[in-house]
Amino acid sequence: MKDTYCIIMAGGLGQRFWPVSTKSTPKQFLDILGTGQSFLQMTFNRFLQICPLENIIVVTNHAYIDLVHEQLPQISEEQVLLEPLRRNTAPCIAYAVNKVKQKNPDATMIVTPADQIVTQESEFFMQIETGVKFAKRNDTLLTLGISPKRPETSFGYIQIGDPDDKDCVPNLFKMKTFTEKPDEEMAQIFYDSGEFFWNSGIFIWSVEGIESAFEQYHPELYEQFFVQGKNMYGTDSEQSFIRKAYSECQNISVDYAILEKSDNVYVLCADFGWSDIGTWTNAYHHLDKDENRNVIRGESVHCYDAYGNVIHSSTDRLVVLNGVNDFIVVDTEDVLMVCKKSNEKHIRQFLNDARVKKAENVL
Amino acid sequence: MKDTYCIIMAGGLGQRFWPVSTKSTPKQFLDILGTGQSFLQMTFNRFLQICPLENIIVVTNHAYIDLVHEQLPQISEEQVLLEPLRRNTAPCIAYAVNKVKQKNPDATMIVTPADQIVTQESEFFMQIETGVKFAKRNDTLLTLGISPKRPETSFGYIQIGDPDDKDCVPNLFKMKTFTEKPDEEMAQIFYDSGEFFWNSGIFIWSVEGIESAFEQYHPELYEQFFVQGKNMYGTDSEQSFIRKAYSECQNISVDYAILEKSDNVYVLCADFGWSDIGTWTNAYHHLDKDENRNVIRGESVHCYDAYGNVIHSSTDRLVVLNGVNDFIVVDTEDVLMVCKKSNEKHIRQFLNDARVKKAENVL
Repeated sequence: MKDTYCIIMAGGLGQRFWPVSTKSTPKQFLDILGTGQSFLQMTFNRFLQICPLENIIVVTNHAYIDLVHEQLPQISEEQVLLEPLRRNTAPCIAYAVNKVKQKNPDATMIVTPADQIVTQESEFFMQIETGVKFAKRNDTLLTLGISPKRPETSFGYIQIGDPDDKDCVPNLFKMKTFTEKPDEEMAQIFYDSGEFFWNSGIFIWSVEGIESAFEQYHPELYEQFFVQGKNMYGTDSEQSFIRKAYSECQNISVDYAILEKSDNVYVLCADFGWSDIGTWTNAYHHLDKDENRNVIRGESVHCYDAYGNVIHSSTDRLVVLNGVNDFIVVDTEDVLMVCKKSNEKHIRQFLNDARVKKAENVL
Repeated sequence: MKDTYCIIMAGGLGQRFWPVSTKSTPKQFLDILGTGQSFLQMTFNRFLQICPLENIIVVTNHAYIDLVHEQLPQISEEQVLLEPLRRNTAPCIAYAVNKVKQKNPDATMIVTPADQIVTQESEFFMQIETGVKFAKRNDTLLTLGISPKRPETSFGYIQIGDPDDKDCVPNLFKMKTFTEKPDEEMAQIFYDSGEFFWNSGIFIWSVEGIESAFEQYHPELYEQFFVQGKNMYGTDSEQSFIRKAYSECQNISVDYAILEKSDNVYVLCADFGWSDIGTWTNAYHHLDKDENRNVIRGESVHCYDAYGNVIHSSTDRLVVLNGVNDFIVVDTEDVLMVCKKSNEKHIRQFLNDARVKKAENVL
């Protein structure tokens, strides 16, 4: 699949995984699941089975260039796109599309976040292949939708519409609506309806398809990245151009900038043991539990009358928990956090408060 | 009061205050309340207002000799009695009585644990004076009983009998029974009855009175410490004699060895803001609380939706608690403990398990 390219978006801060995920080493560079690989490494190795090494591009914040090369020594400098600022996924994708276009205008691109897990790889590869074939034949925007396993409130949801009338691919539908993280009541309604799928954030499209979508639905970003950048990519001026473009462009997700507005978005409904490990509770669902439903990482954790916790100790301290149920307990060199699982949405708040009051080391 | 002597018993391990209290620095040497003084220093300074400096004797385990002199630089070597082994209070008192007797056979002794607090000192001094006067006139054994403030299960209880018929001292009664830490149901019955008082562990008696009590009620200890030791105290042989005596003598409290058997025990019922700070929950009752009923020690503790906790951080880590109610949270360099307040009786178990599994540094 030499025309297939993969864009790994690895520029996030992973704040919902604080205090393990910090600004200097955010989640995607961490082995939170204890697999021996960081999320980025797992994602990279997964896509290495889909497209040639040289077709994999990592987009990240400039601060993480060393981390990327350290964790992925195989990739060359030009495979790492550096963002000077965090501007969400639309500018990131606009930049990457132009870089891929320059290499191969006929490319089909798979865009993926760096921090997801897939437990059924062969199913995943089959779905990706289906999607790539469809995107090659049609200038559509395709997203992978995941059958929801629970009324999760930390994911986006896609509502499906009519079945694919182009190639009649099974489980392929037109996208009807998409909704960012719903509240509990809405999540339950979505879950019960059977019409809603988790938004995986994995997109498949041709360079041509996504370029014309930018032109049509976000002319400003199109102007900034496609028109003004036309002769910049691959030149000595690329970095300064990108700095300027990022400083001026809108901070917006591709979902809001493009997908929500387009009537050409398709959803391939799939099921391959996917999860966006966005929060401690997401991670909890995917980790091995002991007989008391505790997920325990750490050498010296002693639990007494403690059930349903995520316990993560990266120090060599003894951790003793008694009567602690359904909590996230994180013990790092700089921070101790004990947070009710059901309140994990407040973790960003804790981090913000820490930022106001404390030294950089905990952020 | 040159005939008044004070014996401070400071040999305990303070295990119920683990992990802050450790074998190398047990509770009595710590400033758990944040007053700027350790329990031992507070107790010493309190008794310095009752008897001359040279009449204060500290009995402790030999391992703590340096800690005692460091914390109480005023006292001489001979004012520190070193126990080679932990044998509870009866041998400790037998040893101390003989030492005091050698100095002053007419002495009246106040015996006190090192780790109590008194918030109403002038009332305390008055009660002690009353007790000392009574003990000087009568060869009785006197204990201070405290009006119970709640149905506490971690203290001993004394049941009072008839009022004093010797000197007709107000609030002085014959002791009827004493009960070690009762269960919750019994504690409630004791509390409701009005006949039961907390056993302060503070005793007042003359040398003669306690010596004859040992002779009558625990002839074995009498033989070991009073008869065999007669010519040993103050000589070069004292240390080796004490090592032998401790290695052979019974491990028993003075309550069981003497008080329970004697019909000559009196209780002076008092109320001077006393507490035996034996557990985290005891400490909780005596410490300043914030508007959410949290007791917080530590520079960087952030509480969210957290009520009624004792939080003790002796590290410079950021501590973030959310949804944590009625817990003991202790953060030291070596241990993190999160324990439901109502389960604090299990702390010794945690310590024992740690002993089995971990390095000495946490014990």
